Amino acid sequence: MSTNQNDELAQERLIDLAVEFYDQFAEGDIPHMDIPTRTKSNIVFDEDSNVWVYGDRKSTRSANSVRGARKLLKATYAIEFLVNQLEEGRSSTLRELYYLSESWDTEEAQFNDQDESNQLIEDLEIVSNVTREDFHMRPEESGATLMGPLELREQTRRGEREIHCQEDVGEGGYQIPNNPDTIEFLDHDIDFVLCVETGGMRDRLIENGFDEEYGCLVVHLKGQPARATRRITKRLHDELDLPVMVFTDGDPWSYRIYGSVAYGSIKSAHLSEYLATPEARFVGIQPQDIVDYDLPTDPLSDSDINALESELEDPRFMTDYWEEQIELQLDIEKKAEQQALASRGLDFVTDTYLPERLDTMGVI
Amino acid sequence: MSTNQNDELAQERLIDLAVEFYDQFAEGDIPHMDIPTRTKSNIVFDEDSNVWVYGDRKSTRSANSVRGARKLLKATYAIEFLVNQLEEGRSSTLRELYYLSESWDTEEAQFNDQDESNQLIEDLEIVSNVTREDFHMRPEESGATLMGPLELREQTRRGEREIHCQEDVGEGGYQIPNNPDTIEFLDHDIDFVLCVETGGMRDRLIENGFDEEYGCLVVHLKGQPARATRRITKRLHDELDLPVMVFTDGDPWSYRIYGSVAYGSIKSAHLSEYLATPEARFVGIQPQDIVDYDLPTDPLSDSDINALESELEDPRFMTDYWEEQIELQLDIEKKAEQQALASRGLDFVTDTYLPERLDTMGVI
Repeated sequence: MSTNQNDELAQERLIDLAVEFYDQFAEGDIPHMDIPTRTKSNIVFDEDSNVWVYGDRKSTRSANSVRGARKLLKATYAIEFLVNQLEEGRSSTLRELYYLSESWDTEEAQFNDQDESNQLIEDLEIVSNVTREDFHMRPEESGATLMGPLELREQTRRGEREIHCQEDVGEGGYQIPNNPDTIEFLDHDIDFVLCVETGGMRDRLIENGFDEEYGCLVVHLKGQPARATRRITKRLHDELDLPVMVFTDGDPWSYRIYGSVAYGSIKSAHLSEYLATPEARFVGIQPQDIVDYDLPTDPLSDSDINALESELEDPRFMTDYWEEQIELQLDIEKKAEQQALASRGLDFVTDTYLPERLDTMGVI
Repeated sequence: MSTNQNDELAQERLIDLAVEFYDQFAEGDIPHMDIPTRTKSNIVFDEDSNVWVYGDRKSTRSANSVRGARKLLKATYAIEFLVNQLEEGRSSTLRELYYLSESWDTEEAQFNDQDESNQLIEDLEIVSNVTREDFHMRPEESGATLMGPLELREQTRRGEREIHCQEDVGEGGYQIPNNPDTIEFLDHDIDFVLCVETGGMRDRLIENGFDEEYGCLVVHLKGQPARATRRITKRLHDELDLPVMVFTDGDPWSYRIYGSVAYGSIKSAHLSEYLATPEARFVGIQPQDIVDYDLPTDPLSDSDINALESELEDPRFMTDYWEEQIELQLDIEKKAEQQALASRGLDFVTDTYLPERLDTMGVI
């Protein structure tokens, strides 16, 4: 769908919400808004889309209390702001929205803190089934970079830019814009997408020419990936039919990074279909690699152990593969970083480790 | 100086260090290395370069103890690694160096932890008077982005890239490479450089076309700026003779961000001449703005108050301007974010605040 169609749909959906409040008033009902309950016990696996989504349990925001009425008042002001923003083709950040509310004429509609305005935008995303990006709300966090044989067209406010993500960029790569749905994929020579956690490893792959040798698009995750990074990863998979591989450190926090690429988070299960790439596969560092390649390690801390144990209970990690790996790690009580591969020399990761792993996984 | 000449110089200086150890042995002296003491009491203002540098106090690393001898052994292994790396035209990260030492044949030369290898590289920078970047040691942290009327040529491993930082990039801007000395400035239409702390404000300026309207190069600092970001800022000032302005939140931590652009840090005073832009000026948010523009604020926390009081004692902030502003802030007990300007509307920062401030400061 083009960006303009998205804008129109977002406007319509927002106005529909306002209309709903109006109708509730007109019919003598107390205005209210029903929202799925956002807890671990209310996420279910959707077999069709292969992602975790909210179940049937709902919470109601109702004007039957002063507090509830104030919440709906804030919602209507926010809806008006967003509709105007879309009409004017502008955008803003969550933080700007919070501050901007100070200029609203009804003091009761102003936000008390940014948690409140953030929460409201998430509520609006869920009930309207439109993403924050389509409301033109920009994240504070910026996306990361791409490097590889991909030619794309980005629709900017200053016109179109056609960019090849190896030939037209510096060593830093192509900076993913806040809303990657402004990007159209033109042409590519990619065999697989490799999402890399750390900057040090991303730079190692580029310096060693791994993207050129293997037809690989390197996506830098920069730790826990921004929404823009997850969105473009999903689009690369869905639109170009490419395998997506995730390469992180070998510790429970990094498995969560993989989880957020593949399954999304519980807090944002309403966005799973937009942001998650359930077909994404984990390359490593897996606990088995620590054993097989005799990598330099650090001992697990108490919080590492707790995080691993909590992952064993997490529906997103309830597969034979993850249970085996997590139990192995709890057994050996060790973790290793991506860059620990350098203990075998700077080329080990690109000459040996990745080719072996990707071959075993049937990717190359 | 071209990158190649830098490489040769770095090699020479490293080999000189090894020769020095050799000569000390040959003359029957105990091998040793003298390094400036890196404490607050040993930094002095250098009137010529207008930056803070180390004073005359030295610490000695000497082989007169087992511990000292081991330190020098590690230094010689690291020197050998760096010289080879330069010869092969390769690079690595600090973390890779730490792990790589596990492959060294003498176990005594291997690093115990990364603090030790980081510290050694800093020592080598200081005694050889060559920067880490010229050793081809890449930082873990990546630089930020540029957007504005600048055309540059970047020397990459894959050949030269000519890039205009408005016309050839997406909305995310041009990603600064790890070593910005691979960049040559070709042409520009810049009137001043504006370094911006937060992504939200950087995006606001770009969306509002501030860079186009005012001939401004927007440098995104991304919080505490990476070395690459500070280095390119200094080069823009020195080589293109451009005013550099710094725009941050209005709190003590953000004044330190300004301080690191303008003066560098105590820990890296040996790099001040390479990284610091002493002529950089602070636009705001200044405590006076909180009063003048009646901005939404948060109260100062205890740690904010402590940080402000410590800044009053910091030689880098001992000017009439900073004393006045910091005392005003301690008096009003409030702080404000850049994005608080949105309480006056999304265009207030580009239509009113920045033009007024830059006019007052004589920049536009």
